[in-house]
Amino acid sequence: MGLDTAATKPHERLAEIVAPEMAEVSALIRARMASEHAPRIPEVTAHLVEAGGKRLRPMLTLASAKMCGYGGPHHIHLAATVEFIHTATLLHDDVVDESAQRRGRPTANLLWDNQSSVLVGDYLFARSFQLMVETGNLRVLDILSNAAATIAEGEVLQLTAARNLATGPDVYLKVIRGKTAALFSAATEVGAVIAGRPESEVRALAAYGDALGIAFQMVDDYLDFAGSEATGKAVGDDFRERKLTLPVILAVAAADEAERAFWVRTVEKGRQDEGDLGEALRIIGRHGALEATKTEAQAWAEKARAALGALPEHEIRDTLSDLADYVVARLR
Amino acid sequence: MGLDTAATKPHERLAEIVAPEMAEVSALIRARMASEHAPRIPEVTAHLVEAGGKRLRPMLTLASAKMCGYGGPHHIHLAATVEFIHTATLLHDDVVDESAQRRGRPTANLLWDNQSSVLVGDYLFARSFQLMVETGNLRVLDILSNAAATIAEGEVLQLTAARNLATGPDVYLKVIRGKTAALFSAATEVGAVIAGRPESEVRALAAYGDALGIAFQMVDDYLDFAGSEATGKAVGDDFRERKLTLPVILAVAAADEAERAFWVRTVEKGRQDEGDLGEALRIIGRHGALEATKTEAQAWAEKARAALGALPEHEIRDTLSDLADYVVARLR
Repeated sequence: MGLDTAATKPHERLAEIVAPEMAEVSALIRARMASEHAPRIPEVTAHLVEAGGKRLRPMLTLASAKMCGYGGPHHIHLAATVEFIHTATLLHDDVVDESAQRRGRPTANLLWDNQSSVLVGDYLFARSFQLMVETGNLRVLDILSNAAATIAEGEVLQLTAARNLATGPDVYLKVIRGKTAALFSAATEVGAVIAGRPESEVRALAAYGDALGIAFQMVDDYLDFAGSEATGKAVGDDFRERKLTLPVILAVAAADEAERAFWVRTVEKGRQDEGDLGEALRIIGRHGALEATKTEAQAWAEKARAALGALPEHEIRDTLSDLADYVVARLR
Repeated sequence: MGLDTAATKPHERLAEIVAPEMAEVSALIRARMASEHAPRIPEVTAHLVEAGGKRLRPMLTLASAKMCGYGGPHHIHLAATVEFIHTATLLHDDVVDESAQRRGRPTANLLWDNQSSVLVGDYLFARSFQLMVETGNLRVLDILSNAAATIAEGEVLQLTAARNLATGPDVYLKVIRGKTAALFSAATEVGAVIAGRPESEVRALAAYGDALGIAFQMVDDYLDFAGSEATGKAVGDDFRERKLTLPVILAVAAADEAERAFWVRTVEKGRQDEGDLGEALRIIGRHGALEATKTEAQAWAEKARAALGALPEHEIRDTLSDLADYVVARLR
């Protein structure tokens, strides 16, 4: 298309490829976040939906459907479904985490109240189910309702695993599969399903989304300790919120007696003093736990790329492969 | 069946009629509230599900399906779906209302925390969608996903209408249609749909559930001011929470200047002193607002009974008719 692909990042290239469809998705989202009776609903939703997120999840659905040669209208509904589920979970997450900021703006629970965030989140969940029912495709409904259950289960598991130093890498993997990878995986899988592609391709796209989501969340958890000049993201939020992410889990597993006492005090008991984040970073560094997290994330990105091998050659397939690379490139 | 029907209340008679099916529903609920990864989920759910509620909503689905001659297995899934949606909304309502008690026991948000109530509620919503997808019936999915959206919309409307003295009977009707009648209506309607009954019967059962739910909620709102010896329910919760229910809405509409100032101070501004509940009751009484609420509830119960006229004669039909009577009999 005369586009200098070498100069563009893969998610920007994907956004260009599905730009016409994404315009339809945006229109559908605006139409369905309306409420004749309760104007609070579109106010709260617009605050999040129009905050300038990258819309990575609906983009994955549109890209998957396009690559699979889908010719019907339902990829638009499914992409909007996926974005509504994501927005609903963000609203509820911010209540659960008592967050004050998201994407550099005050959260809805701060601007309105927790009540509005809980109930508008419920409304968007229900709206997402209406949208997917409109596709009339029972297999798609099965995939997306399973994803919704896995997401909620992952969030509950994260809540109960927080502050518990016995949390191992296996529980961490279940948590991030729930909170992140389940929706990525459903987003890519449904594109192949509505296009009626063979099982091998459906499985490949589900596996790609799963591995991409896991890599994506591991990078997020890495950057929360390592920092990132590109995003300007603050370091140490997870430590302050006493969340057990992979860097800490690996450092706890390798801790000597004094280090263990440090983690018990700061994470388990939550008694944090000035300088504790620095000490946490030194302990994490001493055991190579950030490096190990990076290696693990890279391995999942590689799994994502490998999954694409089961699919026919396509420009979008190559861009999805580059996207997996790009997700872990933030680690350098 | 040798049952002395004259001596039993209609909901007890219905419970007897669908007892074998309800045992299956209970087993399905127990199986589906499990979570391999997050034991917090069944803990919180069991607290509510096993608290000894009357299970009126799943009973309506089972009764409707049985009356309609349904012979398949999916009424069990649908009844469990309806109970899961109800339980999820209770969990979220208690967070929104900051309630400390439900059915005479401490609420989940008090025993665990708001976070658990929000996330376990999300899990139950997702589980309810999985259950309804298993029926493979798209029309049922349409009805229940619409009901879920109407419920959430009604809850948001209630939140934004609270404390607003401009709230009229029209907004009140929308709120209670959402928070109560939508699920009653879906519960009875889906029984006719899965049984493949003619449209006239489907519409009749939807209208019955809608009117029964509206009457049910109006009685609840009446008793919150009038009190009830049978339930031992405390009087004045809605007044203290500054909810605008029909008795107050009608009293506000008829208020003189001094009374209006009273409602502005106590409900709009929330400055309530000792003795204000008594004064509210006197003002409500002066304008016959409790009597008017009672008349309105009785009219909806009559609509519920009338809707049943479109259905063939059946023991269950007569019991549903008695149930509509019984709901407003609490008013005497």
